Amino acid sequence: MSINYAERANHVKASEIRELLKVTERPEVISFAGGLPAPELFPIDEIKQVCNSVLTENGMQALQYGTTEGYTPLRELIAGRMCRLGIDVPAEDILITAGSQQGLDLTGKVFIDEGSTVVCESPTYLAAISAFRTFLPRYAEVAMDDEGMIMEDLEMALAENPGKKFIYTVPDFQNPTGRTMSLDRRKRLVELANKYDVIVVEDNPYGELRFKGESLPPVKRFDTEGRVVYSSTFSKILCPGLRVGWICAAPEILRKYVLFKQGTDLHTNVMSQFIISRFFEMFDIETHISKIRETYRVRRDLMVQTIAREFPEGIKYTRPEGGLFLWVELPSHINARDILIKCIDNNVAFVPGGSFFPNGGKENTLRLNYSNADEDKIVEGIRRIAKILKEEL
Amino acid sequence: MSINYAERANHVKASEIRELLKVTERPEVISFAGGLPAPELFPIDEIKQVCNSVLTENGMQALQYGTTEGYTPLRELIAGRMCRLGIDVPAEDILITAGSQQGLDLTGKVFIDEGSTVVCESPTYLAAISAFRTFLPRYAEVAMDDEGMIMEDLEMALAENPGKKFIYTVPDFQNPTGRTMSLDRRKRLVELANKYDVIVVEDNPYGELRFKGESLPPVKRFDTEGRVVYSSTFSKILCPGLRVGWICAAPEILRKYVLFKQGTDLHTNVMSQFIISRFFEMFDIETHISKIRETYRVRRDLMVQTIAREFPEGIKYTRPEGGLFLWVELPSHINARDILIKCIDNNVAFVPGGSFFPNGGKENTLRLNYSNADEDKIVEGIRRIAKILKEEL
Repeated sequence: MSINYAERANHVKASEIRELLKVTERPEVISFAGGLPAPELFPIDEIKQVCNSVLTENGMQALQYGTTEGYTPLRELIAGRMCRLGIDVPAEDILITAGSQQGLDLTGKVFIDEGSTVVCESPTYLAAISAFRTFLPRYAEVAMDDEGMIMEDLEMALAENPGKKFIYTVPDFQNPTGRTMSLDRRKRLVELANKYDVIVVEDNPYGELRFKGESLPPVKRFDTEGRVVYSSTFSKILCPGLRVGWICAAPEILRKYVLFKQGTDLHTNVMSQFIISRFFEMFDIETHISKIRETYRVRRDLMVQTIAREFPEGIKYTRPEGGLFLWVELPSHINARDILIKCIDNNVAFVPGGSFFPNGGKENTLRLNYSNADEDKIVEGIRRIAKILKEEL
Repeated sequence: MSINYAERANHVKASEIRELLKVTERPEVISFAGGLPAPELFPIDEIKQVCNSVLTENGMQALQYGTTEGYTPLRELIAGRMCRLGIDVPAEDILITAGSQQGLDLTGKVFIDEGSTVVCESPTYLAAISAFRTFLPRYAEVAMDDEGMIMEDLEMALAENPGKKFIYTVPDFQNPTGRTMSLDRRKRLVELANKYDVIVVEDNPYGELRFKGESLPPVKRFDTEGRVVYSSTFSKILCPGLRVGWICAAPEILRKYVLFKQGTDLHTNVMSQFIISRFFEMFDIETHISKIRETYRVRRDLMVQTIAREFPEGIKYTRPEGGLFLWVELPSHINARDILIKCIDNNVAFVPGGSFFPNGGKENTLRLNYSNADEDKIVEGIRRIAKILKEEL
């Protein structure tokens, strides 16, 4: 028997790293590998009350099929939050998605032909690479510094890659680097998108998790022509298990997303949409977000301090102002995959950075997550990594 | 500003019919258009108890990210139910999807290249056409009679279409026709799939909703080589708002589905998976399914009887043994879209059949749903349609 897979299915394969990281499920392993929120902060009792309210008052509707665009009160609530970010949109410009990951799949469907160019940060979000991969694009990686994409490099990438392309960016506390794009570059990015007439996909799951200082306006805030597609999620400010995110885009573009969403899964989980919408009515989300921010800030501080104290000389790392991750650059002759194997033997794990570069390279990098480990584990885990690094460097 | 959509996005457009049917949201319209289960049968109180139990006992896990393959106890439960259908599989062969609609999107990703042939019933499930459309296949439609696909036509379609192809079938109470494939044809279908070395995708959301007689074994029951991909859902036996379905396939094939699922939405709603799994522990699903069957049987009987009494001569219709739909064939010179427009003026709606034929044609057909209207509405709605038909015929 032969199996006639589609061409794209011949390319796809399980990541080695993912296989290696399966050990992180063992309780003795301290894992900085995932991107999981701290589950001890989930408002479980509140959600229990919310579920009771939703099922008592709207049971038939919450358990029935829904519209592809999403539950109207939730779309209105999101539009209201977008307005507070300076993006003045009606509820009609919002499409509810199954987490922001689905937004990426739909972006692939709407914008990527085989051979289209995705212009993205180098490194970029790993699961965006998996989502886009289905549609067989090429990648033009744009070098970053501590202010995000370097604009001269971005312009070069736009000028040098003919054919269909769009810019994909995670401007706030980027996954994997934790870096934030500066205000000037946000404006410049939109200018360049206008000049080269390309779409921008702004993926912003972490924006509300800033630990100090002023929030920066989203890139879409500077969108003069309706060319920025904005995506975000409730996964990091409430909980990811409900799988609710959204896309905000100009009506013509959003219509395409809606049409593909229809074929993809008909609509997002209705019960989850009711739960989130009712949660916002019954409880104060801002108080809840403050608690998350404060917890993650303490963990980031501790991780940064422990790295500063324990890691050997010659290692660079970011000091993110928010979000879930920091990024480590080892001396160029060190391969983080080899370090990971030794770390796993010592019951500590992280994600090697190589996979975050869609065209490959930079195997001397790694990503550390600080949101999902308590204080003791952060100190002990960083010590274990430091011990291996001292042996190797 | 120009928007560089992917080629596939230039093809996709909103269906006229869907626009027409927006009026069915008006409360005065009796709609036989949707495919909605009867919401008055949703076990709302039971689900409330289930939610309390899940959040009390497993809150952190139910609201956290989950694995792509799905929640293990739910996969085990499904494997158990598959065994009762004569399909002896371990939990590892089950992938949890966001409704069975997502199974179709993933099928497209795994099996369809541009120009691949989908060999399907004529007519076939509308939302399968929307799901597959993203991947730009061609269709070979196989004529049906009351026993499902005609096997000589199927063999011709397999022989005449070179290149990549698979067979897509809804064997039980098919959407849109309500027809069921006979036992002999199920066996023959697998023989032909073996002979022509093609994959079979068996989409079976309605199988458990048989009103009388013995259930037929799924096509996958006769699968000797692991070439049948089976898909089903909890939408019709519990509720659709939770968006939980599954794919059952041989390990090598399932691995591809899992890899694409990862990029598509990471994993299915975890809370929903816990709810369904806990529901099966706390309550007797069989009692619940019996109630659904009985309600739909009464509605089908009433719809068939009212059609027999009220419709003018020369109209054919199916008498489904289960499921949600029946299929009407008007005299060939009558266009069901024209009838729909007149019906809408008289506050009754259905779906014209033309869209269920992927290559177009058969505009003299229509689909009627009987699961979502109470007895009075069924009688009144069919009378209204009959009145228009009498004027037109």
